Amino acid sequence: MAGKVVLLNFWPSPFGLRVKIALAEKGIKYEYKEEDLKNKSPLLLEMNPINKQIPVLIHNGKPVCESLIIVQYIDEVWNNKSSLLPSDPYQRAQARFWADFVDKKVYVASRKVWRPKREEQEEGKKEFLETLKTMEGELGDKPYFGGETFGYVDISLIPFYSWFHAYKVLDNINIEAECPKIITWAKRCPQKETVAKNFPEQKMVYEFVAQSMKK
Amino acid sequence: MAGKVVLLNFWPSPFGLRVKIALAEKGIKYEYKEEDLKNKSPLLLEMNPINKQIPVLIHNGKPVCESLIIVQYIDEVWNNKSSLLPSDPYQRAQARFWADFVDKKVYVASRKVWRPKREEQEEGKKEFLETLKTMEGELGDKPYFGGETFGYVDISLIPFYSWFHAYKVLDNINIEAECPKIITWAKRCPQKETVAKNFPEQKMVYEFVAQSMKK
Repeated sequence: MAGKVVLLNFWPSPFGLRVKIALAEKGIKYEYKEEDLKNKSPLLLEMNPINKQIPVLIHNGKPVCESLIIVQYIDEVWNNKSSLLPSDPYQRAQARFWADFVDKKVYVASRKVWRPKREEQEEGKKEFLETLKTMEGELGDKPYFGGETFGYVDISLIPFYSWFHAYKVLDNINIEAECPKIITWAKRCPQKETVAKNFPEQKMVYEFVAQSMKK
Repeated sequence: MAGKVVLLNFWPSPFGLRVKIALAEKGIKYEYKEEDLKNKSPLLLEMNPINKQIPVLIHNGKPVCESLIIVQYIDEVWNNKSSLLPSDPYQRAQARFWADFVDKKVYVASRKVWRPKREEQEEGKKEFLETLKTMEGELGDKPYFGGETFGYVDISLIPFYSWFHAYKVLDNINIEAECPKIITWAKRCPQKETVAKNFPEQKMVYEFVAQSMKK
């Protein structure tokens, strides 16, 4: 019994996409509610009064916030199907370390690409590519970050792939040339239906980003 | 069997203190190695090549990095004694949310207090007190964040109490007046020997901070 599951999200969010993929991995049916981030719903403000951000997973009326925490929650509650985190505590700590690296380093660097000053942008581009190269070093020649099966670190990073086209066209960041193994991995992930069916088209994300930049 | 446990740390670090308290809660004996952060040891650079930061827990030769990840690792490996995280997945998600809030909001705001411009400092002070008031709201009238017993959220926040005296004397931030419940809670925690025996004296931390500010 999944109970009642509701997801509050905004479609281009890489953080929300993590939750969608995790729910798909577990085969959980849920109600999807798209948020207008310029006019947040009373439900979002009630369910996440501290950060007021998507994604929020509402399970039987109770909210869980912050995407990596939600993915761990999903893995712990629906623990009878395809574990997302490794069962060994050491491997689990390593998976948490790399997912944390995606949030604290990869994502943070990716935001610097859009800072107002050109020199800050150039620094951001360099830093963003460096963080992706670090992830590439961790991936090595494994099919997925955890080894043979798709899991927690893959879920934490793969959503950003939907933004790569926007970075290429709008910011001239050629991730394909710099991080070929990351690209091979990123193209492998959507061979899984759980990823493919939830993945926004890169062109739609590009149009969203281009529009946002104009404003 | 605890195996061989080594902690790389720097004594005033609130992050390292989390690990010391967690190890004490579990009754784990370990070798303590103090790091000179201006001249990091080859062992630290080998064990944490990505972030090059303390604390690092080395368990049977294998490193675990990032304090909250280390505390979770300790809780999962030595799971026969005083659980630090709740067993219920929903309560565990809430504990993770608040520990994450300490890192992303409380700590980040506390750093702004020492920015070079006075107006940034004032903004930092206001933000720091606001984040502590948010924590106070979550604590409410409970003895500890998780309820009746000391746990993960307490471990994530209590180390910062060792810095409160420095904030008061050096920055005129009167946390006692603004957040009385946090202070009552903070004074309750060192009634536990696991906290008391590891807690640096507030005056020593003050002297360390005052020296660092001069430089």
